Amino acid sequence: MKQVIVVNESLRLPRGKLAAQVAHASVDAFIRAPAQSQEQWLHDGMPKIVLHGDSDAALIELERIALEAGLPVALIADGGHTVVAPGTLTCLGIGPAERTLIDGVTGALKLVK
Amino acid sequence: MKQVIVVNESLRLPRGKLAAQVAHASVDAFIRAPAQSQEQWLHDGMPKIVLHGDSDAALIELERIALEAGLPVALIADGGHTVVAPGTLTCLGIGPAERTLIDGVTGALKLVK
Repeated sequence: MKQVIVVNESLRLPRGKLAAQVAHASVDAFIRAPAQSQEQWLHDGMPKIVLHGDSDAALIELERIALEAGLPVALIADGGHTVVAPGTLTCLGIGPAERTLIDGVTGALKLVK
Repeated sequence: MKQVIVVNESLRLPRGKLAAQVAHASVDAFIRAPAQSQEQWLHDGMPKIVLHGDSDAALIELERIALEAGLPVALIADGGHTVVAPGTLTCLGIGPAERTLIDGVTGALKLVK
């Protein structure tokens, strides 16, 4: 089991802001997952990776594909109080779910360093 | 209700690594909170902030104070597969809990930009 969070790197969010948005996606996708997936993922140590998305359009397309695959997803729009405009799509959480299912959606994306 | 994640900024983790560690702390502290706190926080839109911690010792001390205040906490040690040494303390999640209770522990800390 794993979880991935795809970041809209066109925004180049600063470190603290990015971390808060990724955490938001992580919790939001987690609570949408089936209880059995939640429990297995927690047992596995909550493996998660943060991946590079090119744009808001890329996040929307990945959300569509993940939903078609039956995966739990959470597309995060920022409240826009601080760094970015209201409604800006910052990241997409997918899973926890089976690694192979998630890799079928995000396997081609690079890690955010 | 809110949640804070205090980061060990002596490590200066790169953006993606920091985001994954903060997400880990966020989920881990969330699952340790009482159901009523979880529900209220989700209803409020999961407000969370990422704060600056000076060192691993600072995180340990904040964990002690938060536990004494009865708050749900999660102190995160990295697996050390990639960027940092195994067991390095990367961040501390506190809450979700009442804002005033959390501010009593972390109110003096600065935001991570």
